[in-house]
Amino acid sequence: MTTALSTHRAQRRSSSWSTNEQVHQKRYQIMTWVIDKRLAFVAFCVLAVNVAMNARAADDPLPSWNEGATKSAVIDFVTRVTDEDSADFVPVAERVATFDNDGTLWAEKPLYFQLLFALDRVKTLAPQHPEWKTQEPFASVLKGDMKGLAAAGEKGAVEILAATHSGMSTADFEQIVTDWLATARHPTTKRPFTEMVYQPMLELLAYLRANGFKTFIVSGGGIEFMRPWTERVYGIPPEQVVGSSIKTKFEMRDGRPVLMRLPAIDFVDDKAGKPVGINSHIGRRPVMAFGNSDGDLQMLQWTTAGEGPRFGLLVHHTDAKREWAYDRDSHIGRLDQALDEAPQHGWVVVDMARDWNQVFAEVVDE
Amino acid sequence: MTTALSTHRAQRRSSSWSTNEQVHQKRYQIMTWVIDKRLAFVAFCVLAVNVAMNARAADDPLPSWNEGATKSAVIDFVTRVTDEDSADFVPVAERVATFDNDGTLWAEKPLYFQLLFALDRVKTLAPQHPEWKTQEPFASVLKGDMKGLAAAGEKGAVEILAATHSGMSTADFEQIVTDWLATARHPTTKRPFTEMVYQPMLELLAYLRANGFKTFIVSGGGIEFMRPWTERVYGIPPEQVVGSSIKTKFEMRDGRPVLMRLPAIDFVDDKAGKPVGINSHIGRRPVMAFGNSDGDLQMLQWTTAGEGPRFGLLVHHTDAKREWAYDRDSHIGRLDQALDEAPQHGWVVVDMARDWNQVFAEVVDE
Repeated sequence: MTTALSTHRAQRRSSSWSTNEQVHQKRYQIMTWVIDKRLAFVAFCVLAVNVAMNARAADDPLPSWNEGATKSAVIDFVTRVTDEDSADFVPVAERVATFDNDGTLWAEKPLYFQLLFALDRVKTLAPQHPEWKTQEPFASVLKGDMKGLAAAGEKGAVEILAATHSGMSTADFEQIVTDWLATARHPTTKRPFTEMVYQPMLELLAYLRANGFKTFIVSGGGIEFMRPWTERVYGIPPEQVVGSSIKTKFEMRDGRPVLMRLPAIDFVDDKAGKPVGINSHIGRRPVMAFGNSDGDLQMLQWTTAGEGPRFGLLVHHTDAKREWAYDRDSHIGRLDQALDEAPQHGWVVVDMARDWNQVFAEVVDE
Repeated sequence: MTTALSTHRAQRRSSSWSTNEQVHQKRYQIMTWVIDKRLAFVAFCVLAVNVAMNARAADDPLPSWNEGATKSAVIDFVTRVTDEDSADFVPVAERVATFDNDGTLWAEKPLYFQLLFALDRVKTLAPQHPEWKTQEPFASVLKGDMKGLAAAGEKGAVEILAATHSGMSTADFEQIVTDWLATARHPTTKRPFTEMVYQPMLELLAYLRANGFKTFIVSGGGIEFMRPWTERVYGIPPEQVVGSSIKTKFEMRDGRPVLMRLPAIDFVDDKAGKPVGINSHIGRRPVMAFGNSDGDLQMLQWTTAGEGPRFGLLVHHTDAKREWAYDRDSHIGRLDQALDEAPQHGWVVVDMARDWNQVFAEVVDE
């Protein structure tokens, strides 16, 4: 299951279908002109480039986005900043786009998926911790008592994170995450979590990259929880993932160097932490920023306060049928102040029910 | 003065000179074959690609490196990992090369250049701090008393760093660094600091990038001291610079968001901190790592302990005539344990006097 790849393939397929006939005609014409093998090869290459360029112009880069003000705002902005003759032209090196992950690129209900991972890990590790049967917050987790878990509050959450996210090497943690994602299923949709990514956002990522943007994740989620799969699923390499982290320590174990994960928070990449994380990891102010909650408020403020053309967008979860509908009252992904501030900053607000004709990525078995 | 650019230009110039005659012959032949304008254009493009490929094979990518075991080791390794038919082939996405900065990409004598910057800043700021006339370590700095400064030790250094590197926004600090570099001169060579970069290393950076490597700086120096100029001088963009940092804080000032630099150390990217910084910022183990001191020991250990082909290199400062000669006894850039460990790990040691026919980059006025 490689959703980014499948999207890419689907786009490629549709491009070649739409212009197949012209391709054959044109190729025939040119082939009759030249005999020399190299020139024939050259001509074929150029033809392929032409076809691709025509296809790109004719094709819709964002087919899962309904026509309307939201989609137009995105396309107009990208067109403007990539047009060398425009006053708003932005050089390729400065084309940085940052994306929140939970609720922006993939779903976040009923709980952040990384929390579901942590709860699963508590169950997996329980046989090695008989004391957890009576010790909170672990006892509540093992009994499936979500109220008891909630009562343990932030202190409980930190204890669960420490027990499940630290004490191993970075390499071992990467393997644990990879193994979990391969088998775990979402509690209500029963789909693998990496299939709960938004098709319109995959198209947007591909569209921005095709226009010279470097796409980054800037998430409150764990940086090392995301990196094992973001390249495969989103086409975003590990060095372009910014997230929360715990401290790590370089050590020699059996004569070989390892990085051990310590039970201590290093950095929280959320709210006012997001501009700090962006500055630390990217060192440039983004030109475009995409979020879905008040956790993204400062990232959008920071981004759109920059000089020159800037773009902010909030994904508003309005689709109870195909996904979930929530904003101000929600505990997770709460969208309140950012929604209020959107008009004054000119941030675009996606109405998921209205603006997206497809929500989750299509599944293509590999 | 844009040294990376000048290197690039010089290489381009020599490529076109060397194959000029063949180009004209070949172009003439092909031009007589075809009349159609598009095909003529196509043919010209392909020809240009051919010329570029021939030129690359014929040209020396590392002209400032003398022929010998060191240069061969670099070229052999790069050839191996970029050859799809080799057992040591490394996919482009994994081609990460990390470079220390001080003493590896630019000089570091008589003091790290960032310390010279800090001392200059103390002098610049002194009129606003009359108390510094009698208060150590500032009094020693203002009197030019390096012994007194040394006596203030690490505590003194931290005080100077806090006074000169914090209390302003990230944007203001970037401007301060940029302004300083534009006018400051090295105390003995009298050259701008950005001209005290090593020509052989500029060639190496360009060579690795031409072979699909992503080049990163991983330095004990300040991340925000380097980012304002690394793209111009080394061709390394800010998001590929890893370094030491102080804490920053997101704040609203006059209704606009700023990141303020706080007088508190956030991360020391040196020694055992380098693999931690690499993991945090890059999230992949490098395939190649380049350093010059014991501060780079753990980065080289971490890099070359990885599975598959790995490459470690130490720049040994042996050239008292053209640069400086120092290793084990040196305070700055001390190369001791790493030199001892080099043979057992197969790290290549550059003997600057023997292996480089040119040390500093040529200066081309723009």
